[in-house]
Amino acid sequence: MERLEQQIQFIIEIDKLKQVVRQTYVTDGSRNENSVEHSWHLAVMAMILSEHANDPDIDLLKVIRMVLIHDIVEIDAGDTFLYDDKHAESKINRELAAADRLFNLLPSDQADIFRKLWDEFEARQTKEAKFAYALDRLQPMLHNVITKGKAWQKHGVKKSQVIEKNSPMQEGAASLWEYISDLLDYAVAEGYLFE
Amino acid sequence: MERLEQQIQFIIEIDKLKQVVRQTYVTDGSRNENSVEHSWHLAVMAMILSEHANDPDIDLLKVIRMVLIHDIVEIDAGDTFLYDDKHAESKINRELAAADRLFNLLPSDQADIFRKLWDEFEARQTKEAKFAYALDRLQPMLHNVITKGKAWQKHGVKKSQVIEKNSPMQEGAASLWEYISDLLDYAVAEGYLFE
Repeated sequence: MERLEQQIQFIIEIDKLKQVVRQTYVTDGSRNENSVEHSWHLAVMAMILSEHANDPDIDLLKVIRMVLIHDIVEIDAGDTFLYDDKHAESKINRELAAADRLFNLLPSDQADIFRKLWDEFEARQTKEAKFAYALDRLQPMLHNVITKGKAWQKHGVKKSQVIEKNSPMQEGAASLWEYISDLLDYAVAEGYLFE
Repeated sequence: MERLEQQIQFIIEIDKLKQVVRQTYVTDGSRNENSVEHSWHLAVMAMILSEHANDPDIDLLKVIRMVLIHDIVEIDAGDTFLYDDKHAESKINRELAAADRLFNLLPSDQADIFRKLWDEFEARQTKEAKFAYALDRLQPMLHNVITKGKAWQKHGVKKSQVIEKNSPMQEGAASLWEYISDLLDYAVAEGYLFE
């Protein structure tokens, strides 16, 4: 029973991720989305888009588990906006401390599994981690295009910055990068994104 | 490219599920949660609690895919409160029409896969569907206990109703039902739930 109690305490603790607000807006532009909504979206995207991974022979369960838990550290560390280079400097240490505290709420065998998944995602070396990263980059760009660049406009983000920060997704899904690149050109033409 | 375009349109459409509000509150009681947040929570719970399924030899990927998509029909059909028997009568037809429209936005092979997963979840015959259903019942009860019965109080829900509506989760996870049953007794003792 103690094991189940630990598991339930973790399940209750991660409810806090529903309160971590991201810079990205939901597609009708009415409000910012939170990190749980973002994580769910990536998981369903993985179910649909895995055929577009550079190596489609990937472990889908691992990709989905990675994207489901990749932002849990933000409960302690907060969300770091992709284009906020200043805040990014402290991101690694904030997130490592968060991973230590949060995953260790679980029974130790499961804490290990979650930590390894998160480490693998962050290291971006395996095909699953590269594809999960590609989804993590694709989703907010899509939301930006649909909301006429709402988050880009708010923060004065330029196309060159979007390319610099997101083009590494090619390592996981070159065809998805190609797809979104065309949308970036469209976004510039429409005035949603600064040239 | 047309295939990817269809996939992306579905991915954009399901963003609307972030706006479908449930009766359950997030654990700090500050607001209701939405169906995407609920679905994410179930998916992570599946990762953690599958050892408590009556038959632990289940296909975890299938369980996770089921819970991730089980509420997508609510984009058209709305959320139906578990204790609202009147509204429940029309639920099946509303949700079937929603499934027809929404899943068919996908390329036909993927539309079939999503529809079969949703049908399997709804039919509650396989061990994966029974366990997914158990998680779907457990999560809102946990949230109610933590928020001192906030949704139960608001709707005047009694313990007998909670037991009637939720005890079928025993078919998927008897030990989790036992765990939450004790919490229901506690909730009555504390005055969170009407006897």
